[in-house]
Order: sequence, then structure tokens, then C-alpha cells
Amino acid sequence: MASRRTDEIEDLAQRVRSGDRRAISRAISWIEDQTPAGRKLLDRLYSPRPRSHRVGITGPPGSGKSTIVSELTRLLRARGEQVGILAVDPSSPFTGGAILGDRIRMQSHQGDPGVFIRSMASRGSLGGLATATYEASEALEAAGCSRILFETVGVGQSELEIIEAADTTVLVLVPESGDGVQVMKAGLMEAGDIFVINKSDREGGDRLHKEISLMIEMGRERRGAVAAPSSAGLGLPRDRGLARGVSETAWERRICRTVALRGEGMDDLLASIEAHRDQIQSDAAVWSARQEQRLDSRLRTQLRDRILHGLWKAGHLEEWIGDGLGRIRRGEISPYGLVDELVRRLLPEDRPAGIEAGKGGDR
Amino acid sequence: MASRRTDEIEDLAQRVRSGDRRAISRAISWIEDQTPAGRKLLDRLYSPRPRSHRVGITGPPGSGKSTIVSELTRLLRARGEQVGILAVDPSSPFTGGAILGDRIRMQSHQGDPGVFIRSMASRGSLGGLATATYEASEALEAAGCSRILFETVGVGQSELEIIEAADTTVLVLVPESGDGVQVMKAGLMEAGDIFVINKSDREGGDRLHKEISLMIEMGRERRGAVAAPSSAGLGLPRDRGLARGVSETAWERRICRTVALRGEGMDDLLASIEAHRDQIQSDAAVWSARQEQRLDSRLRTQLRDRILHGLWKAGHLEEWIGDGLGRIRRGEISPYGLVDELVRRLLPEDRPAGIEAGKGGDR
Repeated sequence: MASRRTDEIEDLAQRVRSGDRRAISRAISWIEDQTPAGRKLLDRLYSPRPRSHRVGITGPPGSGKSTIVSELTRLLRARGEQVGILAVDPSSPFTGGAILGDRIRMQSHQGDPGVFIRSMASRGSLGGLATATYEASEALEAAGCSRILFETVGVGQSELEIIEAADTTVLVLVPESGDGVQVMKAGLMEAGDIFVINKSDREGGDRLHKEISLMIEMGRERRGAVAAPSSAGLGLPRDRGLARGVSETAWERRICRTVALRGEGMDDLLASIEAHRDQIQSDAAVWSARQEQRLDSRLRTQLRDRILHGLWKAGHLEEWIGDGLGRIRRGEISPYGLVDELVRRLLPEDRPAGIEAGKGGDR
Repeated sequence: MASRRTDEIEDLAQRVRSGDRRAISRAISWIEDQTPAGRKLLDRLYSPRPRSHRVGITGPPGSGKSTIVSELTRLLRARGEQVGILAVDPSSPFTGGAILGDRIRMQSHQGDPGVFIRSMASRGSLGGLATATYEASEALEAAGCSRILFETVGVGQSELEIIEAADTTVLVLVPESGDGVQVMKAGLMEAGDIFVINKSDREGGDRLHKEISLMIEMGRERRGAVAAPSSAGLGLPRDRGLARGVSETAWERRICRTVALRGEGMDDLLASIEAHRDQIQSDAAVWSARQEQRLDSRLRTQLRDRILHGLWKAGHLEEWIGDGLGRIRRGEISPYGLVDELVRRLLPEDRPAGIEAGKGGDR
């Protein structure tokens, strides 16, 4: 690709701010491709004051997340809000990521200029999906979307990172989601500000309601004592448990019952989403601490993604790995010894202790 | 922690090789903690020739993976095999990771000296769970486990990495898993060598069977043309699609129907697992290419984990981030500008192009 001049970037930023849909699409493509031009664009678009309410909608496959997103969008559009939707698809290489069954339900919004829909697909394996999704939401924010909905599936690290970047997290379950213990194993429960029992007219809805209530009750006791670890950060002690937990002890988690396909319970759900936003913004000190902590987490995530991208493009790495494989094959070194050696080669000598291996000291 | 002397490490390696259960436990703890001593130990234990058959068992929560693992273990023990079980629990901070409902079913093997069971919990957020799990399996291999079962839940990056480190992957589904499109969205389907329809006596079992058959049929065409991307690697072109795909075009994926709680269909499942192992080992050239590709992937994953660990412990990073947050707050820089600056500080000047930001050229 040819390099992009500064005025081209400035021009795109202008058009994004004016809400030009093709410009938004192009901006998000740059962001997804993790180009320097995309980063410059984000630098131009950045606003220190958040203007969008970001809502994460997550839950197991088949729970009806897309229908809920579609119905929420309908209600928000009726109020005249601009809505951005970022659907994160842990795309299956097997199906070529082309399974867009859920997307079909979104077609009712497809022609609406007040709704911008984009699928964020996991490309390859370098990670960075959460970063790209958040960055795309910054473009949507600059374009004037007052509400941005992140739709994700699954319990992976990326999905948790995405959810933790949302202001309000909605966890969608269905009576079929399995018994409570199994659901809790999925590791998502602690992320939910609002629980939705969708398809709640089905058998098992009342039981699931009881289980979630019990779990919220248990969580209330725990939350007072211990903040939930953040998965958005990078494992440093100071960064654990900060991104969430500060403002949330005051929020009474809610359970909403919906039958989204018939639009039932959707007003109540939207009211709960608004109530959560109002609550977290009600105390200015708490709100600003929360924003700062999220920024801290995002910085670390971005930094991690950039460094990995960079190191993996470093000059001789392929050659070193190829050579190392030969040495392992000939029994000259173990993979562990080789990794130690590569770490020493890739990082400079004056790196502080802890990186270099085999010095005998535990970390 | 005090530093560990070489003879202490050698002593532990000896005891692991003799199958000493306390030594194995200790070794895995060192590995989980990612200590230099753990890496030295792995270097000592490393054997270039794999002696264990690694079987990954995955599927959504509630599909009965643990019961299947328990039943397979029973059959393998009846043949006199030593079995290692590594259950990867994407532990919920909310529940403190203490939900071990499934583990209860494993208690029948708890007193058996021929079975070693360990839960690998995701600690914090630095990643490295897949690496730690594979490394733990190397300790189990050194201890004489001929069969190592990885049990994982979910569709996250870590889980996919774990699955890709297995020789044979079993994907467990239940009739309730939702309609086919939804299941495929979960991104796991391409990883399965063997599909299990558990609880197959329930309504919907036949429909699921048809859907999986159709999907295998579709996949057969795709697999011939395009190798499935590997998520275990790090996004470099040469490393995509290599870890899988080479030997597998020859494997006819199977569907097994089980009711694991009653032990039904388990013999057939084990026979299929053995058939897969035999098939992938049948052609020496293919087998050795496969081993080499997996080693390549693992090297990259290990290197990534080590570098992140190292950089995140680097001297002034906390200070720089704290300072940067202040500058962002005062409107002096955007988060994107700050990350560019930190990348330049963390990585040396002579780093090849591509790492440094803002040079105008796209990558």
C-alpha cells in the first residue's frame, strides 16, 4: 500500500466527524488493519470527554443477542438517537466467517442512515480484536453515535476485554443455558450489570431467575470485600480489579425478562440500561476514576498489541526460528532453551531483570 | 522467593520422572508461576520424541465434557494406561473459581495412583494459559502418562490454543446446543477431529447429527482447497494454516453418539480417538511435519508470553503510564500518541521498520 499523506488523513477525519458513512467504513478498515494511518486518524478523532454510551451485549450462542440488539436499536431510533453497532464475530475459519444468520435480523435497520452496523471479525491470531473494536467505537463516537452497542459471543479473553470497555454490560441468558453451576463456569457472570432472561416464556425461566438472583446475592457479599479482577489489563497487580469494581458496589444488578422476538420486556430492559448509566455517572468523582482506570487498561492493551505486532515483524526472527527448529531436531537444544536465547536476542541487554531467563532467581 | 539451586531442580526432575505425585504437583506449580526454575525444569524434562497421546476435549458448558473425560479415563485405566487430566477452567473471579461441580464426577478417579488430575486456572489476564497447560502436559509426559486429556470450555483464544496443541480434538455437543448456524458461530467446529453428540437420546439428536454431517461435508471441500488458519501462532503468514491441515485432509472426521452418564457409546468414542491417532501417525513424513509445525507454533506462543511478561516488568513502565495518564487528562496528548511514544521508549532504536509509529507508511 502507498503511504498516506497527512492531508488525506485529516480529510478522512473531517468526513467521519460529519457522519459520512463511507468515510466511517474506511476509517474502521484502517483501524482493523492496524496501519500507522489508522493510528494517526484515531489521534485526530480522539476526544478526552466520552460522548457515547457504550453498551456491551453478551451471552452464549443462541441466546438471542442479535434480536435484542435489533430491538434496542428500534427503541433508540424512535427517540432519534444515532446508534452504532459493532458485532464481534469470533469468525470460524471453517465457515470462512460467512455465517451471518443473525445479521439477517438486523436488516430492518440496514437502510436507516441513523444506524451504523459493522462486524468486527477476528483476523488471524495476533489478537487485538478488543483494541480494534474499541477503536472502531471511537470512530463511531466521533461520527455522532450517542449509543454504541457491542455484541459479542463467548467467554474468550477478547470478548471479556470488549465487555470491560463497555460502560454497561448486558448478559443475555436463556432458560436452556444449562444449570446454574454450568453457567457460572462460563466466567461471564461477574461482568454483567444487567441480566436478561430471554425467551423467558420457555420452561425453566423461573428456575434461571432464581439462580441468577441467588448468584447476585452471593456476589453482593463478595463485591463488598474483593473487587473482581480485570481481564482487560495485563496482569500487573495495580491494574487488577480497578477497571471494574470502583463504582459498581453501588449498582444493584437487575434481572430483566424478555421475549425479544415479540418485543416483550424491551422497554424495561432499555430503562435498566439507562438507569445503570445514570447511576455510574451520578457521582462525578467515581465516574472520573472509572474513566481513568479504563483508560489505563486500554493503554496497556494497546501497548501489548503494538509491541507484539512490532516484534513479530522484527528482522531476523523467522531466520532464528527456522535455525532453532533445526537445532531442536538435532537434539542440540530444548524449545525452552531456545526461547530463552531468543528472548535475550530480541530484547536489549540493559533490560531490567526478570526478562532474562536462567539467572536462577524466581520472579 | 529464594532462588532455586540447580541440584534442587535436578532432584525435582528425577522425582517427576519416577512418577512421584507430589513432585508432579510441585513441578506444575512452578510452571504455572512461570518462574525461571520452572523453565529450567522443563528444559531438563524435555524429550524430543513425544511419548504421550494428547487428546483435547472441548465443547460448550453443560455438554458433559467432564463425564466424558471421566468415562474415557475409566476405559483407559482398565487397559492399564497412566492417564493425565488437565482441566482448564476459565475461572470466574465472581465465584472465586471455586465452582467445581464437574470435578465431583471425577472423584471416582481421585484415589487412583494411575490418574493425575490438575485444574489449570486462568490467573489474572496476562494470558499464557495455553502455554502453561502444554508445559504441564510435558511434566505429565515425563512422569509416564501415556494419555493426556485436556478438558476445556469455551471458544476463547486460550482454549483454541490448547486444543491446537492436542494431537486429537474431540468436540462435544448436545442436542440443546442450538441450531447449526449458532453452533458454527462458536468457531470451534473447524477444530474437531471427532464430534460427539452427547445426551444423544434427547430430542434434537438426529437433527444435530444431520447438521454436523452436512458441515463435515462442506468442510471436506474447503479443507482440500484451503488449510484452516491456526490460532496458536502469531499471525505471521508462514505460520497460518500449518499447524493443522497438513495431515488432516486424510482423516475422515467422525461423529460419535454417546450418553456418557450411562457409559453408552464410550467404547466407540475411544476407538475413534485411537483411529485418529493411528491415522496421523501412519505416514512418517506427515507425522514429523506435523510435529515440527506444532513445535513452531509453540515456540512463537512461548516467545510471545515471555516477552510480554518481561516488558511488563520493565523498569519505568508504571511511571511512564502514570505520567502519560496525567498528560492525557491535561489534553496534552491522545492515548494513541502516548502509545506511540511508549513503543519507541520500550523498544530499541535499531528495531526494524514497522514497529515505530507515525512514519506514514502503511504496513
